[in-house]
Amino acid sequence: MSTSASPIDPVEQSKKLCAYAAVQDNLKPHHRIIGIGSGSTVVYVAECIGKMPNKAEFVCVPTGFQSKQLIIDNNIRLGGLEENSTIDIAFDGADEIDSGLNCIKGGGACLLQEKLVADSSENFIIVADDRKNTGVLGKGWKKGIPIEVIPNAYNKIIKELTALGGAPNVRPGAPAKAGPVITDNGNFIIDCDFGEIPAAKVAELNSKIKAMVGVVETGLFVGMAQKAYIGNADGTVTTLAV
Amino acid sequence: MSTSASPIDPVEQSKKLCAYAAVQDNLKPHHRIIGIGSGSTVVYVAECIGKMPNKAEFVCVPTGFQSKQLIIDNNIRLGGLEENSTIDIAFDGADEIDSGLNCIKGGGACLLQEKLVADSSENFIIVADDRKNTGVLGKGWKKGIPIEVIPNAYNKIIKELTALGGAPNVRPGAPAKAGPVITDNGNFIIDCDFGEIPAAKVAELNSKIKAMVGVVETGLFVGMAQKAYIGNADGTVTTLAV
Repeated sequence: MSTSASPIDPVEQSKKLCAYAAVQDNLKPHHRIIGIGSGSTVVYVAECIGKMPNKAEFVCVPTGFQSKQLIIDNNIRLGGLEENSTIDIAFDGADEIDSGLNCIKGGGACLLQEKLVADSSENFIIVADDRKNTGVLGKGWKKGIPIEVIPNAYNKIIKELTALGGAPNVRPGAPAKAGPVITDNGNFIIDCDFGEIPAAKVAELNSKIKAMVGVVETGLFVGMAQKAYIGNADGTVTTLAV
Repeated sequence: MSTSASPIDPVEQSKKLCAYAAVQDNLKPHHRIIGIGSGSTVVYVAECIGKMPNKAEFVCVPTGFQSKQLIIDNNIRLGGLEENSTIDIAFDGADEIDSGLNCIKGGGACLLQEKLVADSSENFIIVADDRKNTGVLGKGWKKGIPIEVIPNAYNKIIKELTALGGAPNVRPGAPAKAGPVITDNGNFIIDCDFGEIPAAKVAELNSKIKAMVGVVETGLFVGMAQKAYIGNADGTVTTLAV
């Protein structure tokens, strides 16, 4: 039994550091509508905004159930994308980030609402611990690109993704649910492994997948992020910008 | 009061003629999986198949509730797209057809499942009366291109469609339902008028709209049909092929 263990896990500490730095550097006095993403690092984004003395000036738009709870728990005003279709700034995590700040997202099956918020945001800032910053998509994240699809189209799309060179699998709901995961919009997720994807090829791959009939959205976020705040295990924060 | 009126409406007669011709010309002995679309002309496609002595050999995949009922009512075997992801031949109507056999579909809000079936079919045959055969999309069909979108993305997409030069409107559910129409997949329909669309520009417009985050599918069917059977009011059938 160790008595010298830190009370705060280093990975948690790195997530908190980068989230606070991202908010403090980028949230400007004129910003009113803030997108709040999903994931373990965004917990600290909401916590940081929740501590601001002027937090009553903000409306926060969530990307899913977890984000909505974070906004409520931090006593921030909640808003929807319907009435806030231009977001000043959004903060979100990522499953992997490449050198061009392209991301893989959707490990939590929330990629559709995350991408809607990101695409509606004038500034999109990624917060993540350094395990996500591999430089090349598919290098560290081995589960494949999450792709949201219309349920009865899954076999058709599996054939098309295979023809495109991918290795697709319908994401199971186990152990929480028998059969496939159902997303917040009622769809399936196909995780499709394309190996390592060079940054110059990400946009083309995203376009080909999205163009397939039955594909609702892909977990490739291409050219959406302006900056990434990476929390390192040694307590430093690395800032990346395009 | 006229006593010489035909017992069959000429438009109905033209729909029946072209539907029977389409089935009789194109359904081959090796075909087993048949896609059955939506609309008033497809009624006669199902009727024609239902009268065939070998109809027990076929499985029919519907594009929506109406198609499913047509298949059941004509005592044909019903199948789903999940287990029949390669369809031998599909027959469907269209709201408008251009000189390249590109179509506008989705007047009945079933464009997503219709496009899934069309895209899964090795042969896709359009059946329609001659009012739909205008030669240029947007020339006769003035309601705009039906676009299926994620419900909370409608304001974002309306802005993007307007920037693309369209005049978009969320389709109301009135008089059957207050608020917007909800599709069979739980989404909204935006009808977006782009005026007349030259055949050479249809593919590019379709790609731009489908690429928008929050767009599930468009009602532009580009290069999908190999043939169109057009029923004329004078009792003749015009066959168009690419």
